[in-house]
Amino acid sequence: MKVALIPGSFDPFHNGHLAVVRLAARHFDKVVVAAVRNPGKEPLFSLEDRELMLKECLEEFDNVTSRSFSGLVVELAGEIRATAIVKGLRAVSDLENELQMAQMNYRMSGIDTLFVPATSSESFLASKYLKEFARGGRVAELASMVPPPVARRLQEIYGPGSDKEGSS
Amino acid sequence: MKVALIPGSFDPFHNGHLAVVRLAARHFDKVVVAAVRNPGKEPLFSLEDRELMLKECLEEFDNVTSRSFSGLVVELAGEIRATAIVKGLRAVSDLENELQMAQMNYRMSGIDTLFVPATSSESFLASKYLKEFARGGRVAELASMVPPPVARRLQEIYGPGSDKEGSS
Amino acid sequence: MKVALIPGSFDPFHNGHLAVVRLAARHFDKVVVAAVRNPGKEPLFSLEDRELMLKECLEEFDNVTSRSFSGLVVELAGEIRATAIVKGLRAVSDLENELQMAQMNYRMSGIDTLFVPATSSESFLASKYLKEFARGGRVAELASMVPPPVARRLQEIYGPGSDKEGSS
Amino acid sequence: MKVALIPGSFDPFHNGHLAVVRLAARHFDKVVVAAVRNPGKEPLFSLEDRELMLKECLEEFDNVTSRSFSGLVVELAGEIRATAIVKGLRAVSDLENELQMAQMNYRMSGIDTLFVPATSSESFLASKYLKEFARGGRVAELASMVPPPVARRLQEIYGPGSDKEGSS
Amino acid sequence: MKVALIPGSFDPFHNGHLAVVRLAARHFDKVVVAAVRNPGKEPLFSLEDRELMLKECLEEFDNVTSRSFSGLVVELAGEIRATAIVKGLRAVSDLENELQMAQMNYRMSGIDTLFVPATSSESFLASKYLKEFARGGRVAELASMVPPPVARRLQEIYGPGSDKEGSS
Amino acid sequence: MKVALIPGSFDPFHNGHLAVVRLAARHFDKVVVAAVRNPGKEPLFSLEDRELMLKECLEEFDNVTSRSFSGLVVELAGEIRATAIVKGLRAVSDLENELQMAQMNYRMSGIDTLFVPATSSESFLASKYLKEFARGGRVAELASMVPPPVARRLQEIYGPGSDKEGSS
Repeated sequence: MKVALIPGSFDPFHNGHLAVVRLAARHFDKVVVAAVRNPGKEPLFSLEDRELMLKECLEEFDNVTSRSFSGLVVELAGEIRATAIVKGLRAVSDLENELQMAQMNYRMSGIDTLFVPATSSESFLASKYLKEFARGGRVAELASMVPPPVARRLQEIYGPGSDKEGSS
Repeated sequence: MKVALIPGSFDPFHNGHLAVVRLAARHFDKVVVAAVRNPGKEPLFSLEDRELMLKECLEEFDNVTSRSFSGLVVELAGEIRATAIVKGLRAVSDLENELQMAQMNYRMSGIDTLFVPATSSESFLASKYLKEFARGGRVAELASMVPPPVARRLQEIYGPGSDKEGSS
Repeated sequence: MKVALIPGSFDPFHNGHLAVVRLAARHFDKVVVAAVRNPGKEPLFSLEDRELMLKECLEEFDNVTSRSFSGLVVELAGEIRATAIVKGLRAVSDLENELQMAQMNYRMSGIDTLFVPATSSESFLASKYLKEFARGGRVAELASMVPPPVARRLQEIYGPGSDKEGSS
Repeated sequence: MKVALIPGSFDPFHNGHLAVVRLAARHFDKVVVAAVRNPGKEPLFSLEDRELMLKECLEEFDNVTSRSFSGLVVELAGEIRATAIVKGLRAVSDLENELQMAQMNYRMSGIDTLFVPATSSESFLASKYLKEFARGGRVAELASMVPPPVARRLQEIYGPGSDKEGSS
Repeated sequence: MKVALIPGSFDPFHNGHLAVVRLAARHFDKVVVAAVRNPGKEPLFSLEDRELMLKECLEEFDNVTSRSFSGLVVELAGEIRATAIVKGLRAVSDLENELQMAQMNYRMSGIDTLFVPATSSESFLASKYLKEFARGGRVAELASMVPPPVARRLQEIYGPGSDKEGSS
Repeated sequence: MKVALIPGSFDPFHNGHLAVVRLAARHFDKVVVAAVRNPGKEPLFSLEDRELMLKECLEEFDNVTSRSFSGLVVELAGEIRATAIVKGLRAVSDLENELQMAQMNYRMSGIDTLFVPATSSESFLASKYLKEFARGGRVAELASMVPPPVARRLQEIYGPGSDKEGSS
């Protein structure tokens, strides 16, 4: 059985991420999407919140499950018996880090990494810019860039009337 | 009327930035240069100081004004009725972030971003290296890389005899 | 009056090019789109054909005209009194060539080059791949990537029943 | 059944290509490696020679077959019922072309492209440099960079005593 | 006498760094490797520890010495009368920062920077990933990527039974 | 004795090349600059012409000689007992080709390649654009970008009144 692990901070999960999952779901028997801690960055959503949203966003897929994880990606890959790590590639600057990480992971545990291209209509999406707009209170315009469960949660936490409105 | 908004942290404003402003001033009726907060980086100069230096550095232009701003760039663009955001491009690594930000800003508010190339003699200038040398007390050598008002202020704050001398 | 010159081989003109023209038309009083010879590449369409298609594709714009040209871009810029050259930027590898060319053109004739970002949905479009598919006879699928006048002409020359069908 | 198509000019097939095939053979039920014409480049080996060498180089794999092809890659993908195109990624400049081609192929025929990273020890291998050295008669040193069948053939055609020795 | 200065944070020093030193030792009469503070990053090893490991790792070279330093690289270059700064280049994203830094250092003090390519088998090595695995307790697998003195120290501090085990 | 080989097509030799030679002359006992054939490109100047101009351009240096060469660079390196190949790096797209070539040359003959950064004021210079302008008859403006002997020769061959004027 071919099992893909798709790790990421998913803070928040957006339509570009969803396109990667959709593609992987066509080529693997099973796909596990894992929200991991990204130490050193102030998160928009807690790891628990991100895990919850992942679950809602991925309900439509029969062969996709989601979870969160706090250790090294290669350890999670071993635990779930992943046959490959799958990562999306959006741009050139992604590539170099990803090639180095892929080599390290292979050297550490023998696991392969496969890359899938971002679809062009989502290639500009990057969580860091979504965060910036969310913190600036512009959540309504973000609704077309994220799945509905994320849009709702952004609205609750960062939308008009929320506690954090205008706090950035 | 064509109005360009040039946002940046300008910490400090240097000759590469000045070249971008000079070029924009030739192609737009009015140019607004705005110093914005760059959260997550320890600034060399306070936002107030940067605004003050911008004003002095841009006095020579009839159609350029300057200010500071704390919110999202698209909000400032709306407020000043900018017809375009203008950014300088120095290098490849600038480009990918800028393309993503340009797409986000267009999607959020319909505003276009135009890019201008760094002139070759200034293409190596990056505020982060200027900061490093200023903090190391090497302000005299920086004088050829920044406009005179910035050189003077660097001298006052980081030069020999200043409070911060040798503090980095 | 602000006049933009948009030079290119436009072999063929596609929706990514059209997006660049549309953006420039919003920021300049007048835009001239010029098909230029690209020596050393076997063209899909003759320069005359390309000029003709440009004219049809750009009819919708009040402030855009088109033409062909055989000399240096800086000479055309002088002839039409362009105030800037405008180029689309799709990707990193475009950038370095464009920055060098922009510097050369500035040094040769004092003209500025401004860059506009490819819109994300068209950022994958490159004439070289369109050519390859046209030569392979796959013209029907190209219709969504080029303006209607180009789609019609591709159909006539490379479509089923044409002389060149299957010739590549 | 998951079927990968790995297209390339393979002129010549080298150890970097072999690493891509080996990786794909682990993740797909069946892999088809296809030597395609690369119009506009003077080949080192004829398409027939390249097909023959591919066959010898890939004998060790149970689930890998090879062939040559003269049309569009998407047509071959349809013909062999490939579920994905697989390409190796060595470097940044590969990526942009590959992302554009992947998008075009998806738009033309709905087929996905997956990328696999070059292993670090082979990441410097590029057919164009192998060609240059072969044409310069330095075939002995190339033996560690290509599979044995290619090394033998290089020796026969470009080695000492061959007709083409020193001809470049 | 030609003296090369190789500055870096070396946190930790790995086989890619060692390859740079080995190459420089062939082309310069004397090489000084200096561990410098990298403000803004949480180090894996203290500057003292890094200096100590450098010394052990570089014992094999007759013409290489090591030290630590806290100021600007150009100041150290002056102090040791370096005739050039030498840096390793692994990838494209390294290059742009390095070109800018090289220009700044030249403008500040007239010193040249020479670059040497990472050898392909080490080109994926980056201290940031080594750190991540060390903090995750995977020190045994790192032994093939670092010189023995670093492997031993990683084992002592981050290996099984150490205080910091599992703390990341 | 440290001997650097600087190979290139030098068609034509320009101020960016001169900056690389000047830098190498400071760090090596002897520098050999070699004009090599660049098959597959229509040259602006014959190899003999290029060799002649090199000689005139490099007269000012005591430790620099020049020549032409038709074989592989590694063979020339062996013949002149070069201790290193030296190449200039202008931009990111240069780097990847150069890293691959450096690895190939090292694997083929054990020779190291060192890179030197283009100085910023010359970083936009690329022979291909100089060629284009020369063929377009714009030789007067090129005089500030090439050494005087090249400027004179460009004037003779491509300037007003020359046979080739306006021929491109």
